[in-house]
Amino acid sequence: MADPAYVAVDWGTSSFRLWLIGKDGTILGESRSDEGMTTAARTGFADVLGSHLSKLDAPENLPVIICGMAGAKQGWVEAGYIDVPASLSAILTGAVSVPGQSRDVRILPGLAQRDKEMPDVMRGEETQLLGALGPDGKGSQAVCMPGTHSKWVHVSDGSVTGFSSFMTGELFEAITKHTILSHAVAGADQGPADAVAFEAAVRAAFARPAMATNLFFTARSGQLLHGLTPAGAQARISGTLIGLEIAGALSNAANGVGITLVASGRLLGLYETALKTLSLSYTAIDADTAVRRGLAAAAQAIWPN
Amino acid sequence: MADPAYVAVDWGTSSFRLWLIGKDGTILGESRSDEGMTTAARTGFADVLGSHLSKLDAPENLPVIICGMAGAKQGWVEAGYIDVPASLSAILTGAVSVPGQSRDVRILPGLAQRDKEMPDVMRGEETQLLGALGPDGKGSQAVCMPGTHSKWVHVSDGSVTGFSSFMTGELFEAITKHTILSHAVAGADQGPADAVAFEAAVRAAFARPAMATNLFFTARSGQLLHGLTPAGAQARISGTLIGLEIAGALSNAANGVGITLVASGRLLGLYETALKTLSLSYTAIDADTAVRRGLAAAAQAIWPN
Repeated sequence: MADPAYVAVDWGTSSFRLWLIGKDGTILGESRSDEGMTTAARTGFADVLGSHLSKLDAPENLPVIICGMAGAKQGWVEAGYIDVPASLSAILTGAVSVPGQSRDVRILPGLAQRDKEMPDVMRGEETQLLGALGPDGKGSQAVCMPGTHSKWVHVSDGSVTGFSSFMTGELFEAITKHTILSHAVAGADQGPADAVAFEAAVRAAFARPAMATNLFFTARSGQLLHGLTPAGAQARISGTLIGLEIAGALSNAANGVGITLVASGRLLGLYETALKTLSLSYTAIDADTAVRRGLAAAAQAIWPN
Repeated sequence: MADPAYVAVDWGTSSFRLWLIGKDGTILGESRSDEGMTTAARTGFADVLGSHLSKLDAPENLPVIICGMAGAKQGWVEAGYIDVPASLSAILTGAVSVPGQSRDVRILPGLAQRDKEMPDVMRGEETQLLGALGPDGKGSQAVCMPGTHSKWVHVSDGSVTGFSSFMTGELFEAITKHTILSHAVAGADQGPADAVAFEAAVRAAFARPAMATNLFFTARSGQLLHGLTPAGAQARISGTLIGLEIAGALSNAANGVGITLVASGRLLGLYETALKTLSLSYTAIDADTAVRRGLAAAAQAIWPN
């Protein structure tokens, strides 16, 4: 087994993931929990990190590179933002040190788009992006990173030219839990997903995005009038949100731009189905792999061998 | 004071409104409460109605005409739906009697659009619509009835040709209470509304409806990057939802169709501002007046003098 070289951490709002990485780049150990920024802000960031490091017996002098919400204003140490347009490699240079630690701990900055009409921010996805494309990516790409607040990033020859956040995941939660549609979807998770309803909703929202909040309502009226199932209602809401997101994201993109999908698990499946339904070709990259690669690039830049 | 002729009731999901109407059409008394369908389904519809009638000393033989959710499947007595396309006057003919009452109590039907792709239903708004336009309304109209589930109805020469529900009001509640944007709007209700932010959001969502869930997110990123106030964040969310609704509704309408706005209070103000911002001309009718007029037309048809 290779000697450990550094520790990589993806510290989100509600999740914590840590990997012990060897000198040859292999993963020597992994530790996950739900101690995201929200929890750690209460219990202490240093304690959360320390407990995961102990669990993996990480050597005391091993440096730690972190991306994500640990660098937010409400996080551990504010790591600021790199303003776009910016080169992907600029992300590597903006890490801040966490003071008062026995080991070298750095947090990577986020990206900010200070446009007056379309202000936007990200923290964590910039590292995924770096890992997915590499610092010198060629050509024009629209990179989709689905999630609570899905990010679509426009990258041209290694430079981030702009990006947009879509509240897809969080709206799905709010709509299915806190509106009248909670009744329409009750029990949906106990059965198989309704792929036909999902694809129809993706197509409808993509074709007529202005009808989005009406399409949501058809999850209810479809049950009253056509016997739509709970799984069908859930698929309609999910498909409408994803179809709307893709329509919005591509309205900002050049025709025929390459799409890169950075996702894993259930979201990877949903977005692959949506893109295929719309006859949009794409390249998929595993989200976990991408964030580790981005953290590796940062570690290599900060602590060259 | 004129003798009472009938009792008119608008019985919604969460509100109950009753008027005692004189033989000359004047309002002799009014009683309101939050005993909508949800409450009445627990406490008993007959008891709720009885308590309001007693409060106004309504004579024992006075008939009662009701519109709204009291006629839903989960309501008092199911009043079914009239399928569109339908003439406005068809609404007048579909009332069902509530059995076992000492007085004549009737509930008006709703409207259903059994379209496979765009199923839709309404209960209560069909009576507002009838009151706003009269049973023989001429010309083509797009009638907007804002609310929890805003309705836009297309009417041509006295016939309802189609309609769409938009979840505008309910999504505003869900987004401002149950997403990360609840922090962005905290305290907004303590100060004046931000008309500039509202109008900008209406314009942005109307012009680019596909960006809706991104525009919501700018309520947060605008605070992080540009010092947007809580009132500004609230106005952005509200303006985005209303701009999106108008874009969707008019995408179904003929160019230059007349717009009739049936609303009152705060919603009237918001929708008037939105329509003016988009340079759309409209005629406004008070929602309370419209529903009473619709109920009066039904009472006249059922119990002609």
